[in-house]
Amino acid sequence: MSVHNDQTKAGAGRTIISVDAMGGDRGPAAVVAGISVSAKKNPDIGFVLHGPREELEKLVAKRKPLAGRVQIRDATDVVRMTDKPSQVMRHGKDTSMWSALESVRSGEADVCVSCGNTGALMALSMIRLRKLPGVNRPAIAILWPSRNPQGFNVMLDVGADIRADEQDLLQYALMGTSYARNGLHLERPRVGLLNVGTEEHKGRAELKAAHDLIADTAPKAGFDFVGFVEGGDIPGNRCDVIVTDGFTGNIALKTGEGTASLIGDQMKEAFKYSPLSRLAAVLAYTSLQRLKKKMDPRRVNGGVFLGLNGTVVKSHGSADATGVAAAVKLAFQLSQSGFGEKLAQRVASATALAKNAGTDEAESSD
Amino acid sequence: MSVHNDQTKAGAGRTIISVDAMGGDRGPAAVVAGISVSAKKNPDIGFVLHGPREELEKLVAKRKPLAGRVQIRDATDVVRMTDKPSQVMRHGKDTSMWSALESVRSGEADVCVSCGNTGALMALSMIRLRKLPGVNRPAIAILWPSRNPQGFNVMLDVGADIRADEQDLLQYALMGTSYARNGLHLERPRVGLLNVGTEEHKGRAELKAAHDLIADTAPKAGFDFVGFVEGGDIPGNRCDVIVTDGFTGNIALKTGEGTASLIGDQMKEAFKYSPLSRLAAVLAYTSLQRLKKKMDPRRVNGGVFLGLNGTVVKSHGSADATGVAAAVKLAFQLSQSGFGEKLAQRVASATALAKNAGTDEAESSD
Repeated sequence: MSVHNDQTKAGAGRTIISVDAMGGDRGPAAVVAGISVSAKKNPDIGFVLHGPREELEKLVAKRKPLAGRVQIRDATDVVRMTDKPSQVMRHGKDTSMWSALESVRSGEADVCVSCGNTGALMALSMIRLRKLPGVNRPAIAILWPSRNPQGFNVMLDVGADIRADEQDLLQYALMGTSYARNGLHLERPRVGLLNVGTEEHKGRAELKAAHDLIADTAPKAGFDFVGFVEGGDIPGNRCDVIVTDGFTGNIALKTGEGTASLIGDQMKEAFKYSPLSRLAAVLAYTSLQRLKKKMDPRRVNGGVFLGLNGTVVKSHGSADATGVAAAVKLAFQLSQSGFGEKLAQRVASATALAKNAGTDEAESSD
Repeated sequence: MSVHNDQTKAGAGRTIISVDAMGGDRGPAAVVAGISVSAKKNPDIGFVLHGPREELEKLVAKRKPLAGRVQIRDATDVVRMTDKPSQVMRHGKDTSMWSALESVRSGEADVCVSCGNTGALMALSMIRLRKLPGVNRPAIAILWPSRNPQGFNVMLDVGADIRADEQDLLQYALMGTSYARNGLHLERPRVGLLNVGTEEHKGRAELKAAHDLIADTAPKAGFDFVGFVEGGDIPGNRCDVIVTDGFTGNIALKTGEGTASLIGDQMKEAFKYSPLSRLAAVLAYTSLQRLKKKMDPRRVNGGVFLGLNGTVVKSHGSADATGVAAAVKLAFQLSQSGFGEKLAQRVASATALAKNAGTDEAESSD
């Protein structure tokens, strides 16, 4: 059984996911191990895998669940974590990242997954897939463990761009709402705008303008706007979607991750402290594993690029097989729900609404 | 034994701390309970307490450790959490907050502690105590649990102002360094500038300018500059002092607090899950209490206002007796170390350095 012979059958009746095998901190072996986990769990996924053919063929051949499920596209070059996006845009044609996006652009794959350099991936996605009509700045949305019944909140932008004006923040509210509907199955998401206080007089000028704009749009676009929220509401239950610029969102995301990781490490140490606490750790093992799984960042691995013609899932650079499999799962779910088309419709109808301001249109329900 | 008779002796040989009894979420009873804890632990503290005399006299009379340690200054009005700073500046003369700052201004107290409205406290501090020469924007600095040997990092600004230019960020680096020396006993603190990536080409224009300015100043001012750091470094060990604007810092602070609180609650639930996990919780009790104490935000309660003629400690609005006592302890330590004067010297010498750019002066060691 050779990978080559199976190539033509990889896509039969399956959702095809385009995967950049290179550029992650752990190399292609972790990526292939991850898609193998996904393939085993879900028979409805096929893969187009991008990177140096010879190396990938060897890795794929070792994984039984991947037999007949993978097409390989040879790409000799790799985008490194230290490469500047501008360089990659000019000289990146032979990279696995470029090739992975090309599969979505051509329509042979539904979604692209990459563990590579975020800035380069966003820059390439913008020039190859292009922005949706009506979207000025695309955004990266993530899921954040929260006190809400659905277990997660959506936050965007977490780093596609370092600035956002009021129109961009309104777009983020619309795109985040669409993601919460399709990714978290919330019919009427509650949106909050991140600020340093909940009083309306606080914060920067563009935030006050965005506050009024989003409040105006909410009833027409079928979401609830709860107004300004604070950092503590990101893992809270006051809203389901947190809207902010990519500078603030990126710092909030990494601060939260760092804090969670510090607490986790200190908990491990606490349980090692004495014979009694080591015994306790054994007895509490199942409960602690459940907690760990709940808070495990690998389980919600994957920032989604919103506002492009095509869906791109950015997996964590340090993702291992579990992390890659989680990103593939997210990509599959989004593809299944027809997320890309629904988001495009939502943005288009909002743009139309803005143009016909005053005439209340029926709510769209996606 | 009456409070009145003891008033004249309250200050004899003691460090006098001016305490705003009003404006916290839990009212004056929690504040008086907190200073009573402090008084019991530390015989070298005396208090000037501000608020409605009759109410405070009753509360103080109930606490034995406060006998002979408290002077009361009658203040009939209170700054509420919802009051706008601008209103308080115009109409706040009769408030306990105004009165508490007045004790520092007049020199009868060394430090002021308040649980009240942060915005109003900063606004009043600016007009009553005035900014240090050479400081454009004062900042609020906090201690954040970290992986460093000292257990905490300093972060500023966490909300004094919503913007900061490169000169302000340089001032924050200098003031944060001084706080780390006096509050954490670090001889040569490492300073990081918060950004969305560690590469020098990333981030906003004012951050790139601040990067160069701080790098230039570091050798002359006796600290190490590690360059850009990310949100994950706030609880990390790459640096001891994290410099950022008050908008970003406030959101990072509250995101971290919210994440820690969510994990804490989920841990409690995990331990309640089964009879086995409940038994484990009993066995691990001591270890978990130690962990809880280590991460307890009440233990590091108190943002310090830096850049004013006088030290002001802002305690958490929801502080209980433990929280108030922690804020008083911090105020006492800063007063003991002569922090206020050292910070003023440091800023003055940095201003002189900037004026004589090029001539390398000897390092100051405070």
